[in-house]
Amino acid sequence: MSNTLKGACVFGQSGGPTAVINASAYGVIRAALDAPEITNVYGAAHGITGILNDTLYDMGQEDAKELELMLNTPSSELGSCRYKIADPDKDDTDYQRILEIFKKYDIRYFFYNGGNDSMDTCNKVSRFMEKSGYECRVMGIPKTIDNDLVGTDHCPGYGSAAKYIATSVAEVCKDTYVYDVGTITVVEIMGRHAGWLTGASALAAISCAPPDLIYLPEVDFEIEPFIEDVSRIYKEKNKCLVAVSEGIHYADGTYVSEAKVSSTDGFGHVQLGGLAATLSGIIKLHTGSKVRGIELSLLQRCGAHLASQTDIDEAFRAGKYAVECALRGETGKMVAFERDMSSGSYAVKLVLQPLTIVANAEKKVPREWITPEGNNITSDFIDYALPLIQGENNRILESGLPRFAHLKKVLVK
Amino acid sequence: MSNTLKGACVFGQSGGPTAVINASAYGVIRAALDAPEITNVYGAAHGITGILNDTLYDMGQEDAKELELMLNTPSSELGSCRYKIADPDKDDTDYQRILEIFKKYDIRYFFYNGGNDSMDTCNKVSRFMEKSGYECRVMGIPKTIDNDLVGTDHCPGYGSAAKYIATSVAEVCKDTYVYDVGTITVVEIMGRHAGWLTGASALAAISCAPPDLIYLPEVDFEIEPFIEDVSRIYKEKNKCLVAVSEGIHYADGTYVSEAKVSSTDGFGHVQLGGLAATLSGIIKLHTGSKVRGIELSLLQRCGAHLASQTDIDEAFRAGKYAVECALRGETGKMVAFERDMSSGSYAVKLVLQPLTIVANAEKKVPREWITPEGNNITSDFIDYALPLIQGENNRILESGLPRFAHLKKVLVK
Repeated sequence: MSNTLKGACVFGQSGGPTAVINASAYGVIRAALDAPEITNVYGAAHGITGILNDTLYDMGQEDAKELELMLNTPSSELGSCRYKIADPDKDDTDYQRILEIFKKYDIRYFFYNGGNDSMDTCNKVSRFMEKSGYECRVMGIPKTIDNDLVGTDHCPGYGSAAKYIATSVAEVCKDTYVYDVGTITVVEIMGRHAGWLTGASALAAISCAPPDLIYLPEVDFEIEPFIEDVSRIYKEKNKCLVAVSEGIHYADGTYVSEAKVSSTDGFGHVQLGGLAATLSGIIKLHTGSKVRGIELSLLQRCGAHLASQTDIDEAFRAGKYAVECALRGETGKMVAFERDMSSGSYAVKLVLQPLTIVANAEKKVPREWITPEGNNITSDFIDYALPLIQGENNRILESGLPRFAHLKKVLVK
Repeated sequence: MSNTLKGACVFGQSGGPTAVINASAYGVIRAALDAPEITNVYGAAHGITGILNDTLYDMGQEDAKELELMLNTPSSELGSCRYKIADPDKDDTDYQRILEIFKKYDIRYFFYNGGNDSMDTCNKVSRFMEKSGYECRVMGIPKTIDNDLVGTDHCPGYGSAAKYIATSVAEVCKDTYVYDVGTITVVEIMGRHAGWLTGASALAAISCAPPDLIYLPEVDFEIEPFIEDVSRIYKEKNKCLVAVSEGIHYADGTYVSEAKVSSTDGFGHVQLGGLAATLSGIIKLHTGSKVRGIELSLLQRCGAHLASQTDIDEAFRAGKYAVECALRGETGKMVAFERDMSSGSYAVKLVLQPLTIVANAEKKVPREWITPEGNNITSDFIDYALPLIQGENNRILESGLPRFAHLKKVLVK
């Protein structure tokens, strides 16, 4: 079989946005526009739902300079979705519709950028097209600030969120030591099941000091040792800075953020207002200290002004590589990163992984990168995360504020 | 009288920290170290309490390069305090102690950097020294992200916080439009009594779009029109972005953040977890929409990585000018900014204001810069705030994270 496949391509973004998902989009779109085999480059409005609804943008009509600005534009420029596609063996309605649209536009390349759910979508679409005998090359491009995809050293989006978190925690650390009165600060960081983001708070040590305590969802949370740890450090230093993952949970799986704390602790009611507020209330009760709860909220996923240039470059390369690989015949794969330290310094090699091993799996922080007590991370974690936050981005400003891409988003008729 | 006064100087920082208060500190310390009349340059640990406790740092022992790094180091490097000094006519214990310390170290110059409370402290110390016949020149240097000092066009610290807020709201704005499901986002911004910071959210229009609704504490908040406004915009656009000042309050003065919402609204209990959470709950109940509450918290006051270079420069100049004026005989004054648009573009002129007119007063956003409905700001506000956020800072990084000043803080024996 010849590897040359002529036809259109469609690209979609899915799941929660990141600071660099549009850099991957630009990688795909730029490479696809430049490829002679690709007749038309379409962007799906709101991911797979844009294909199902036949709302596709003609990326060929965009201004080249505006497209390039996507390198520094946060959030998903083409729109995202959280649509969970059915199992084709049970209900193939969506897949028949996708096939119909692919045929309508002669789409022979499908690039999808997202997390594990999106890789699952990719995988199912890929299998269905194969079964249907419709030649279409399907490639997944990883993306998630959570950094929890298997088969890759790390995920585009993580390095930038990590840089945002480390910088913000360093600044909060400076702020914590301002007054001579005792203060305890609890910073709540994203990550329901994996602690990669919360662990990145330890990088603040480079600027100021690391959090005194770090709690990841990989370890069951226990309230008594937590109170003891905080109280002990507060007694020693008159300060305590704590970083917690939003996903910390008790041994029975209940999230601390939604948990009733046992009435023997004086709390018989469900706490409102997020995890940082919940833990702040508990600590205040036990120490009498001034306690501040800070939730980094979605600022950490859209903070493009602090995006790591390493992350932007890698996100772009991942998108471009997906196109290059598809053009030479690859399908059913996700682009992945292999860390290469052979030169003594950090480098990354792009490889492919079968979508099957990526879909619906989760990569967690190794237990041995967390201290035995479960209240901090080890230097292995630092060594892993530090290279990913390197490099300041060269974003373009207008009147002191970021100049984001303005796309025309011309709908295909 | 000759203007030449030989002796030591002491400098202190007070109140909540900002991204650029250390730039003013550097302005004072650098100019004082370079002045032949000034024999010793002392830094008070934790503001006025450092003078009362005789804990002074010898700034002459610091490395010049580390001192310069204060230009990009957030928070109050010498430590801050919230100590409210007594009225000397009622209790002059503190003042006698200050006089004792001033005499002990031959301190003839006192520079104090802070908000209205600190200008009040300056003013009282100044009057007391005069009454005691101890020659000591006292100068105040303004500082507050709240921007609420009278007698000055704006305050050092405001421009950087405004830039942080505008950039973050622009990024949140991008994030808001990602999904095709309806979303309402409420961003809570600092400012108990004045809406300068919250108004700055409108600058996000330059990058993305301004908040649809902006509520400042200058206007009494009413829950019914608020719900109507949000519901109307949400119906029109399927999105609504709201910026609220933490200080919004009902006509009776009760803060919305701590208010019981009347039980006819279905809320009979005090809401926990901050204003954004409170308002999010109310909106969710009335619209059924997905609602996200975001609190910019103290990130907005310590976000030095986004500090406006205009603000850094002006903060530095203010500190330096305080020393220059004191050396030529001025006392009992605060450094202030006069905006000079005579060249057609923004410039600032440094002037002096009597401490008496600054102490304990508050400057609010003019009512005519707020729309008649009280739910947005006018273009006059934009014209005022925009020049203050200009210029990207040249911060120094180390391993991808900010390199803050490391001072030795050698205590004077």
